[in-house]
Amino acid sequence: MIALLCRGAGRVELTPDYGVPEPPPGWARIRLSRAGICATDLELVRGYKGFQGVLGHEFCGVVEESPADRTWEGRRVVGEINIACGECATCRRGHGSHCERRRVLGILNHDGAFADYLTLPLANLHMVPDNVADDKAVFTEPLAAALEIVEGVHVRPDMTVYVVGDGKLGLLIGQVLRLTGAACTMLGRHADKLGLAAGWGLDTLFLPPAAPGDPAAAPDLPLADLVVDCTGRPAGQQTALRLLRPRGTLVLKSTFHGDAAWNPTDFVVNEWTLVGSRCGPFAPALRLLSRGLIDTEPLIEATYPLSEGVAALEHAARSGALKVLLRPDGA
Amino acid sequence: MIALLCRGAGRVELTPDYGVPEPPPGWARIRLSRAGICATDLELVRGYKGFQGVLGHEFCGVVEESPADRTWEGRRVVGEINIACGECATCRRGHGSHCERRRVLGILNHDGAFADYLTLPLANLHMVPDNVADDKAVFTEPLAAALEIVEGVHVRPDMTVYVVGDGKLGLLIGQVLRLTGAACTMLGRHADKLGLAAGWGLDTLFLPPAAPGDPAAAPDLPLADLVVDCTGRPAGQQTALRLLRPRGTLVLKSTFHGDAAWNPTDFVVNEWTLVGSRCGPFAPALRLLSRGLIDTEPLIEATYPLSEGVAALEHAARSGALKVLLRPDGA
Repeated sequence: MIALLCRGAGRVELTPDYGVPEPPPGWARIRLSRAGICATDLELVRGYKGFQGVLGHEFCGVVEESPADRTWEGRRVVGEINIACGECATCRRGHGSHCERRRVLGILNHDGAFADYLTLPLANLHMVPDNVADDKAVFTEPLAAALEIVEGVHVRPDMTVYVVGDGKLGLLIGQVLRLTGAACTMLGRHADKLGLAAGWGLDTLFLPPAAPGDPAAAPDLPLADLVVDCTGRPAGQQTALRLLRPRGTLVLKSTFHGDAAWNPTDFVVNEWTLVGSRCGPFAPALRLLSRGLIDTEPLIEATYPLSEGVAALEHAARSGALKVLLRPDGA
Repeated sequence: MIALLCRGAGRVELTPDYGVPEPPPGWARIRLSRAGICATDLELVRGYKGFQGVLGHEFCGVVEESPADRTWEGRRVVGEINIACGECATCRRGHGSHCERRRVLGILNHDGAFADYLTLPLANLHMVPDNVADDKAVFTEPLAAALEIVEGVHVRPDMTVYVVGDGKLGLLIGQVLRLTGAACTMLGRHADKLGLAAGWGLDTLFLPPAAPGDPAAAPDLPLADLVVDCTGRPAGQQTALRLLRPRGTLVLKSTFHGDAAWNPTDFVVNEWTLVGSRCGPFAPALRLLSRGLIDTEPLIEATYPLSEGVAALEHAARSGALKVLLRPDGA
């Protein structure tokens, strides 16, 4: 089968004859319908976590083989990416996505979704409602990550919120937060993306890239109850903190190499709460997609066949690129 | 001006020549555009709280006179219904809607909105966004009441929720809860209303009226994390509790005469949380309406001119009636 592999930092390789994976007991083999390229994939290619193997963790597909339960075969599915051991203390407390021995689809010790086939445990799979097309369903994983914000923080309707960063994830986060009724302003540096946010009824503010030596440039705005940083840059976190009211909550939604650019003492003095937020719940993400509450079509920048996966990754790495999708050749 | 008055229990009167109210300092006189009849209005007519005066608290209108701040004049507005003293300990803590000396529009010591004109303090007014028509804006007050649920309770996306009662308020509550991503099932006794809920992507369950002697009839459903009772009936609260999991939360959204039909000990044994919920925040309600996230058109059953207000109240009192609106004569 075709597979898009990371062979080490900076080494991406398209292989036309990678072995089709066999599902272990309790697992399913899934035929790919669509996959999405995420900022994390680009980080992995740059050497993050030293991952080697098939890339990709955002996908939808069809179960082709499920020996343990044949009723799954033929079902359209999406899949949670953390493969928990099920036995450690963390798993026994029900926090499998934080299992100390976990593998992660296309990220850690398990081949991912940028291939004709992938495998996952049945426990990770969710059936896709009929009214959610493949091009929508492929957004389930990042939408779940956006939903993790409202899973972890009680965002009250009368709060004020800033979303700092108007990238792919930021635009999903903005859409989730608009549903809360909160007054939500999206700050970003791309007029076209802010235009999308405005169309969804969010307030927007164009933030030009900060001048050198002034990484924390932030406009003179009222401070907010909640600020979400999804810029993936230290300067973004600094901007976020400059917009946070005393006793407010900062949600960190993106990762980057390197140390924090802020002083923990500021958290004590301002009585700020910091909430780290990563993977989220799939079932509610599918419900929101099925209820027609999330606009995904304008988030798709391009769709490439797997055989052009290297070009797809290059496209996704362009500054300001929205979601680049992959599909099986001939599909 | 035309006004629809409650003169005591069971005594409704339409008056063609009620005095046009003068706004006290800091208040505005508002010309009515639309008013909505609420279950509370029907309760007041039956004698609840002994109210006498002009009925009505759901409205939108245009500020006609605002001596303290002329910039309000000509603005389309909705208004919060609790008129706080601003001086008592409760007000000073910022909980004006619970002011011990409060008056309430059309409910307690202040004439309401079922008239050509009404008055409210400027502090109570909210401007209506241009893209929210009068027929939508008139739902701001009940929508705010629905939003008070997510203001008071952290409804996480991965929760399961039952809404017991498919009346006017229940249908707004269902729409607010669908935005959270939670799995939400609406239980009711009206196939047409449940059909609306299904169209919004909610699960629905038809609950026939319970047999005499079995007021708490509840189907054999999985227990939920959160149950909202908006039936306005003791039997509805019993049904709600039979659907609540241990450590779950019951939100009481409707009032009725008489005592509770459940045993407080059950709350101790099951470690249930009870949350009473009344008026809610207007600004987020207007944001949700402006963002196009709330479907109000199918909730409107009929619109009457004020001069036919008595017939409008009778219509609203019919079993299963949806929202009955009032408009000024000639508008």
